[in-house]
Amino acid sequence: MKHTKVKDLLNSSKVNYEVNAKGWVRTFRNNQFIALNDGSTINNIQCVVDFENTPETTLKRITTGAAVSVIGQLVESQGAGQKFEIQVSHLEILGDSDAEKFPMQPKKHSLEFLRENAHLRVRTNAFGAIMRVRSVLAHAVHTYFQEKGFVYVNTPIITGADAEGAGEMFQVTALPVDNLPITEEGAIDYKKDFFGKHTNLTVSGQLEAETYAMALGQVYTFGPTFRAENSNTSRHLAEFWMIEPEVAFNDLDDNMDLAEDFIQYVIKYTLDKCPDDLKFLESRLLEEEKSKPQAERSEMTLLEKLNFVLKNNFKRVSYTEAIDILRDSTPNKKKKFQYLINEWGADLQSEHERYLVEKHFKCPVILFDYPANIKAFYMRLNEDGKTVRAMDILFPGIGEIVGGSQREERYDVLIEKMKVLGIDEEELWWYLDTRRFGSAVHSGFGLGFERLVLFVTGMTNIRDVIPFPRTPQNAEF
Amino acid sequence: MKHTKVKDLLNSSKVNYEVNAKGWVRTFRNNQFIALNDGSTINNIQCVVDFENTPETTLKRITTGAAVSVIGQLVESQGAGQKFEIQVSHLEILGDSDAEKFPMQPKKHSLEFLRENAHLRVRTNAFGAIMRVRSVLAHAVHTYFQEKGFVYVNTPIITGADAEGAGEMFQVTALPVDNLPITEEGAIDYKKDFFGKHTNLTVSGQLEAETYAMALGQVYTFGPTFRAENSNTSRHLAEFWMIEPEVAFNDLDDNMDLAEDFIQYVIKYTLDKCPDDLKFLESRLLEEEKSKPQAERSEMTLLEKLNFVLKNNFKRVSYTEAIDILRDSTPNKKKKFQYLINEWGADLQSEHERYLVEKHFKCPVILFDYPANIKAFYMRLNEDGKTVRAMDILFPGIGEIVGGSQREERYDVLIEKMKVLGIDEEELWWYLDTRRFGSAVHSGFGLGFERLVLFVTGMTNIRDVIPFPRTPQNAEF
Repeated sequence: MKHTKVKDLLNSSKVNYEVNAKGWVRTFRNNQFIALNDGSTINNIQCVVDFENTPETTLKRITTGAAVSVIGQLVESQGAGQKFEIQVSHLEILGDSDAEKFPMQPKKHSLEFLRENAHLRVRTNAFGAIMRVRSVLAHAVHTYFQEKGFVYVNTPIITGADAEGAGEMFQVTALPVDNLPITEEGAIDYKKDFFGKHTNLTVSGQLEAETYAMALGQVYTFGPTFRAENSNTSRHLAEFWMIEPEVAFNDLDDNMDLAEDFIQYVIKYTLDKCPDDLKFLESRLLEEEKSKPQAERSEMTLLEKLNFVLKNNFKRVSYTEAIDILRDSTPNKKKKFQYLINEWGADLQSEHERYLVEKHFKCPVILFDYPANIKAFYMRLNEDGKTVRAMDILFPGIGEIVGGSQREERYDVLIEKMKVLGIDEEELWWYLDTRRFGSAVHSGFGLGFERLVLFVTGMTNIRDVIPFPRTPQNAEF
Repeated sequence: MKHTKVKDLLNSSKVNYEVNAKGWVRTFRNNQFIALNDGSTINNIQCVVDFENTPETTLKRITTGAAVSVIGQLVESQGAGQKFEIQVSHLEILGDSDAEKFPMQPKKHSLEFLRENAHLRVRTNAFGAIMRVRSVLAHAVHTYFQEKGFVYVNTPIITGADAEGAGEMFQVTALPVDNLPITEEGAIDYKKDFFGKHTNLTVSGQLEAETYAMALGQVYTFGPTFRAENSNTSRHLAEFWMIEPEVAFNDLDDNMDLAEDFIQYVIKYTLDKCPDDLKFLESRLLEEEKSKPQAERSEMTLLEKLNFVLKNNFKRVSYTEAIDILRDSTPNKKKKFQYLINEWGADLQSEHERYLVEKHFKCPVILFDYPANIKAFYMRLNEDGKTVRAMDILFPGIGEIVGGSQREERYDVLIEKMKVLGIDEEELWWYLDTRRFGSAVHSGFGLGFERLVLFVTGMTNIRDVIPFPRTPQNAEF
């Protein structure tokens, strides 16, 4: 007979009929009760084994992690905690799991231990929940943009351009690095490399996405991006997924509206689709925070925090206002900031962003109109000649989750800026074409997907919200 | 006033009210009629300029490719070919497009010329249509799996494993290749590289996806994969997007059912959502085939072909049956095949696949149960000891679009196979863990997304269905 997913069994509209369930044993109690999970939901189905009529050798093989198939009646459960259970009439061990060796025993494991077993950690409740939530969030992203008529664009991963300077890049090559071809001048002969030139992994699809926005109007990317930066922090990955919408005729206000609406939509979507997983992650967080001093615990539970973001507008604050607030703030006056804010023009550090979001405004904040000289070349210069139409969205506990801007659509102004910064016009000939032919106001932003997953799951280390994290000294699996 | 997308204007339920449209001029006829496109649809909106009251200097700037904003009454059109038009009362040139220099003039360009202008080709009707269809197909992929409860998994792009041997790999490094660190033994010291080891770009997420399927039940990947193969053909890219579902408890028959249902779903979804774009691509193909000899033209139009796939089951044929058919075929007997089929065990070439699909069965074909020694190590050995539970789906005009298999779930059999093939057990310790702990029957397949887009759009060169193709000697943009 065909098996039914545990999620469907637990939501069954019928009862007292024969079913087949397949999954993995989470626990086996009293030689009788299997908690069976198949990954379709965080909830297990209880399978009651007729232990008197089951051979001892079979019972011994019902261990945590074993794959089993059970056939039996789906009945209303007498026990607490579940509506249905299966009265097993036939049990088959599909794959054993040696209790002495299986690393994922039903006890508390450190997150560090679980990272070392990234191929197995998804068999735990927490990581099953995280990865289901991540998946639904990803679909929410696509659904939001597609419903609004955006076109999904796959910008290139391997790129010959390295002009944007968003960060250190990884080199990609098919040359034998222990026996490189050399030109007559003694340089590495990249003409002989696969692409006939020096190539890197992309740090952003924005510039290519802009060329598409200037034809299709509204586009978005959602793909992997890379940074070869030795940042061993809980907020950085060398390989992460980024979402980059780009919209023709949008100015910075439209851009802020889009980002806010987008974030609220995907959180709402996930709250609707993943109630059980989010409830589990909420209690996990409460449990974890019990060991922390009161002052470090969250003021809101996970679900309260997510609902707060849905119900409250993000606070929009210009960089100049933010500098005033920070300069007059208690930690600045008492010299508690590591980097004191003395004057307009200072780059904001994580401590300042946290102060604004977590202490001063106590809500997500959109900072805009930054000094031109601390932002990228493609951002639109304001009439004041010293600020650009940049925006960063700051989230409590996460810091920067979105960075975006209205783009400089004026060819002359853009060229001037590139000259000052020494950015090669020849290399970006195609990017400049968007300003040569039918240029128009346009805006976009980048959102680091893993930071969004961090926020929604309440996890605190970015390595725990991507299946196989890539960080300095770690490319296992 | 806020502007409205052209698609929404053309579908307006009201008439005779003031609207604002923004977009790019496709053509400007009789000093009066602008065909305006904003990428939201393949259709243009006609904007009628009051040329008598518009300065000559402005009229001269209404050139192909220019970005303009028009305000005026949306009225029923008297002309043929459109329901509505805009009687322009106010026109603003947002960005000029010098007619002498803009490469995308309204005339026929070669596909090769358009590839060299990949940043601008999307401003043509054909590439706008292709890229909207591509986007909708991508969303169909996600929607299909998400509705069925699959979990989207982002498997790593940078990988330390290179055991699968699906193809030549690109190396990824953050070392200075012109000044590599060397060990005492004289080898390159990859311990000093970013990840502390030699790393490559992934050729497939399958092995990692398997570890997730053995926890979450049903999973799928959809991400970029890479081949450093010097294949300068119309069917190969060095960087392409692949979809890889993997399902616990599915055998090969379930796997074939899934693949067939999936392909039919995404084609149906796209037919429903993209009627205008597909109709355009259909007529484009008819036009293109006019220059071909009758014998080389398609028997069906694009839409007929897509509907045929929806309405007809894929023909399932074992490798052994296929060999019999090929051995007895006319081209084999008349020695027209480049590689003659003499005996069981031969690897099938493109010419054989095309014969089976296009001449013999005249429908999509699923070949299964291939000889073990021409397929990958992880495929499940049949009871006959010489074939494996592999399947390939072959499509007319495209060739192989899907490759998949039931996986070898038996630890001992898998290890034996790896030993014979010299595959490093140490390196795949994590993959083997799926067979050590709670192993079970499972299956999956890989579908090259661009080949699917080729089929659905009726294009014939894979470089024309991805925004910025990566091929030997080409990583421009």
